[in-house]
Amino acid sequence: MGYLTEDKLVIVGAAGAIGSNMLQAALTLELTPNICAYDPFEKGMEGTAEEIYHCSFPGARVTWTSDIHEALSGAKYLISSGGAPRKEGMTREDLLKGNCEIAAQLGKDIKTDCPDLKFGVIIFNPADITGLTVLVNSGLPAGAIATLAALDSTRLQTALAQEFGVAQDDVTGCRTFGGHGEQMAVFASTARIAGTPLTDLIGGDQLSEERWQEIRQHVCQGGKRIIQLRGRSSFQSPAHQSVLMVKGVIEGEGYPWPVGTFVNRGAFQNIMMAMETELTRDGVTYTVPQGTDAENAELVASYTHLATLRDEVIGMGSLPPIDQWASVNPNLA
Amino acid sequence: MGYLTEDKLVIVGAAGAIGSNMLQAALTLELTPNICAYDPFEKGMEGTAEEIYHCSFPGARVTWTSDIHEALSGAKYLISSGGAPRKEGMTREDLLKGNCEIAAQLGKDIKTDCPDLKFGVIIFNPADITGLTVLVNSGLPAGAIATLAALDSTRLQTALAQEFGVAQDDVTGCRTFGGHGEQMAVFASTARIAGTPLTDLIGGDQLSEERWQEIRQHVCQGGKRIIQLRGRSSFQSPAHQSVLMVKGVIEGEGYPWPVGTFVNRGAFQNIMMAMETELTRDGVTYTVPQGTDAENAELVASYTHLATLRDEVIGMGSLPPIDQWASVNPNLA
Repeated sequence: MGYLTEDKLVIVGAAGAIGSNMLQAALTLELTPNICAYDPFEKGMEGTAEEIYHCSFPGARVTWTSDIHEALSGAKYLISSGGAPRKEGMTREDLLKGNCEIAAQLGKDIKTDCPDLKFGVIIFNPADITGLTVLVNSGLPAGAIATLAALDSTRLQTALAQEFGVAQDDVTGCRTFGGHGEQMAVFASTARIAGTPLTDLIGGDQLSEERWQEIRQHVCQGGKRIIQLRGRSSFQSPAHQSVLMVKGVIEGEGYPWPVGTFVNRGAFQNIMMAMETELTRDGVTYTVPQGTDAENAELVASYTHLATLRDEVIGMGSLPPIDQWASVNPNLA
Repeated sequence: MGYLTEDKLVIVGAAGAIGSNMLQAALTLELTPNICAYDPFEKGMEGTAEEIYHCSFPGARVTWTSDIHEALSGAKYLISSGGAPRKEGMTREDLLKGNCEIAAQLGKDIKTDCPDLKFGVIIFNPADITGLTVLVNSGLPAGAIATLAALDSTRLQTALAQEFGVAQDDVTGCRTFGGHGEQMAVFASTARIAGTPLTDLIGGDQLSEERWQEIRQHVCQGGKRIIQLRGRSSFQSPAHQSVLMVKGVIEGEGYPWPVGTFVNRGAFQNIMMAMETELTRDGVTYTVPQGTDAENAELVASYTHLATLRDEVIGMGSLPPIDQWASVNPNLA
């Protein structure tokens, strides 16, 4: 045993279900003993911190605060689940506006308080848009801010393992790209079931085209399904996966799932979305995935959807107009 | 990385806040890939299992069921947080009766379904009494069933670290014995603050006798305080610590905190309570702690309280009368 680094990790939104799980996961995986837990809800934050102290992680030096500047100061790694939950009566636009304002402020605070941040993971919804908003406002290099995108792919892996009755590990190459949920590109061409390409199986005896479409649909609604079953949004899987992303960067040993990253290449301009990515000590690098013509078209459609959302947020004022990004964040020039 | 064993671990009550956290912690700590998650609440159990699948733990083979016999069959390790929560209008006796009936049935099921269980941790309230009830009914050796007792000691460690402004690791030898909460024995004589015996500090400039009594009181109410702060019972620390107990037995490398164990020595007869314990591959062994006269008297008082509760449960029928224990469980003869 031994911590991977002494660098400061800040967890934003650490009193919530996801954030408190992240705190525990980060210590259990021994990322760093030097963690600051932040939440504006001071009472809940203290309660969460107390629980973590009662775990008595050897060597841990966990602090907590409801002062964001104290939290971010000197941080080298960051995970934020600190968005506002959707409340009754709120429209989708209300939620988008609220969370993008939070993201813009987080970006500005990063610029002031921890300009040397090596890597930050943003997971509050809509994550690709909030992640983009943080990145532009933060002034950080494009590869230093990423969003959690793995769950769609692990949900595809889960569904295929269940469908074929094989171990989850035997389902490889599961990949969804672009946005999330209804608007994402589910790639069948990269997946293999115990070595056999999924595309060889679709339409055959074992998996009809119709059943494959059902599975796709099931995967796209994976988040909704957790709410139906548990009576609450997923919190364990997003916490675990986002902590693994930070681990991948600290260790420089990568991360096996797609990551949401800033994309500015070819058909995909000035957007954050899930690509085929690599995590190294320097953050995220990406390649544009090449699927079948239909998959590539789905990815373009997913991009177009995200670009519309992005433009909506620019209209709201949380993101500057694209032609000003390079001056707000020279790293994006 | 690599799992510590291939033996089957069953988590009882795995859809709840504590149980679902245990599931994640056991996989994160790589105890075994072979985990069965059980909960009578099928829908919530499926939702929890799905979340764990979406974590995609490499090599994991997690199954879930709402059939207790399928869950226990062939299990070598068990953790149960599967008690009933206290509901409005329930008296303490209602809760005691309900949970001891659950514990008695779990013990009987263990006897039938997994008589080769190597180690089980019982954590539902009142844990020492439910643990004793499981043990007597299970037919297992005394050291094979234990209860979680660490949190009182880690709360003492936390409170002293905060009081003296030192790192938590610098507070050593924190020990509470007997029962829990108001009825436990808090040992000051074993604790050291950065090497200095706590007893040398109490009554001096740094820690008045009055302040020490306040800290004791704070520690005794540690669980209540989490409810006040978080609006819910602690779930992360009990999950983490009970998974560490199982890890200690699987690895045979011990566990640093007191464990609740079957005690039948000297003044302490036919009871389960926290002692100075050692966890090895063979389960729990204990020694009776020796404190100051006042501490020893507190421990006897704590035992007496537990013995009264035990006798109440015998009256309720979940535990047989003590003179029948040896025939129900020859390992206790």
